[in-house]
Amino acid sequence: MRGRFISLEGGEGAGKSTQVKRLAAFLRSRGLDVVETREPGGSPGAEAIRRLLLEGTDERWTPEGEALLFAAARADHVARTIRPALARGAWVLCDRFLDSSLAYQGGAGGLGAEAIRKLHAVGSGGFLPDRTLLMELLPAAAAERLALRDAEGSDRIGGRGETYHAGVASAFAALADAEPDRFRRIDASGSAEQVTQRLIRAIEDLL
Amino acid sequence: MRGRFISLEGGEGAGKSTQVKRLAAFLRSRGLDVVETREPGGSPGAEAIRRLLLEGTDERWTPEGEALLFAAARADHVARTIRPALARGAWVLCDRFLDSSLAYQGGAGGLGAEAIRKLHAVGSGGFLPDRTLLMELLPAAAAERLALRDAEGSDRIGGRGETYHAGVASAFAALADAEPDRFRRIDASGSAEQVTQRLIRAIEDLL
Repeated sequence: MRGRFISLEGGEGAGKSTQVKRLAAFLRSRGLDVVETREPGGSPGAEAIRRLLLEGTDERWTPEGEALLFAAARADHVARTIRPALARGAWVLCDRFLDSSLAYQGGAGGLGAEAIRKLHAVGSGGFLPDRTLLMELLPAAAAERLALRDAEGSDRIGGRGETYHAGVASAFAALADAEPDRFRRIDASGSAEQVTQRLIRAIEDLL
Repeated sequence: MRGRFISLEGGEGAGKSTQVKRLAAFLRSRGLDVVETREPGGSPGAEAIRRLLLEGTDERWTPEGEALLFAAARADHVARTIRPALARGAWVLCDRFLDSSLAYQGGAGGLGAEAIRKLHAVGSGGFLPDRTLLMELLPAAAAERLALRDAEGSDRIGGRGETYHAGVASAFAALADAEPDRFRRIDASGSAEQVTQRLIRAIEDLL
């Protein structure tokens, strides 16, 4: 039986990477084979591209170049990690996927969703998650969590200004509203355990 | 006045890099500002992507990932090197451009020209050379020239088999026939000087 592909999306500080680990632990406790991964990256080729994307100054890449590099990394990740895992029956939990490109490069970056979708169609055959969990947090709460984090959070993209990140949040919300079957909007406030319980309820129908 | 953008295309061993230098010398003798460049590469970002593309085994990238990386490098090259040079009135001579992606990844690689053109539309706004000089050589003559060359010629893509390279040659010919205004098919046999004279005749109307 083919496994399930679940992506976690949201802005910086929403708790995606913590919740990927916690959700994976829950699924493993149910006896499932689970692959935890994240973008950009998740395969050797995509990790090499990740280094190009996150290093350097904000002006290192044009919006077009950046979108193409994300799509290249995603194509490698899908072909080399995600599809093989699903084919052997594993569940794949991914910290960011296509919707991050749509919200960051397509929305806040000004390139447009249509262009991002074209790149994904060529690179990955338009491959989509079975369920996308959008973790939403008020800007003040996200900023507080980020302040507690070490320097790891402030790379080329995370370090952009507040207007950019507000644009990202509203782009995510619009994506969720446009695809209610695939998306679930999750309140990411409260304790880690509270959030994990909300996430579990949002995928229970797939178990 | 905007400069002119000339690309040289053709298979391995056709003499493109030699002729870029010779054609640049001719144009400079006419008092023109000339930029010599080549793909993949031609700008700092594109050179970093070039290293990802040409290193490693033939299986390092999927055809889709490879096409996206070429398009990303091209987007950077166009935005950072080619367009600024043309804007200041320089002529740009480029060893390989979009048509190499169409012939290699689109044709011989099996991805299809339509997909490659979509990536170019998103990445570089569909930007095309004013003139493309297709340098054609019989397979035996190209093999002879390559045998005289050092190991530099045998990277991830140049090292592919004869069937692949025959597919590339016929894909280039089809591209030239489909766009007779932009393309000139050049006999690349004979001495370097003979070939340079043919190339000059093929761009004289642009001077």
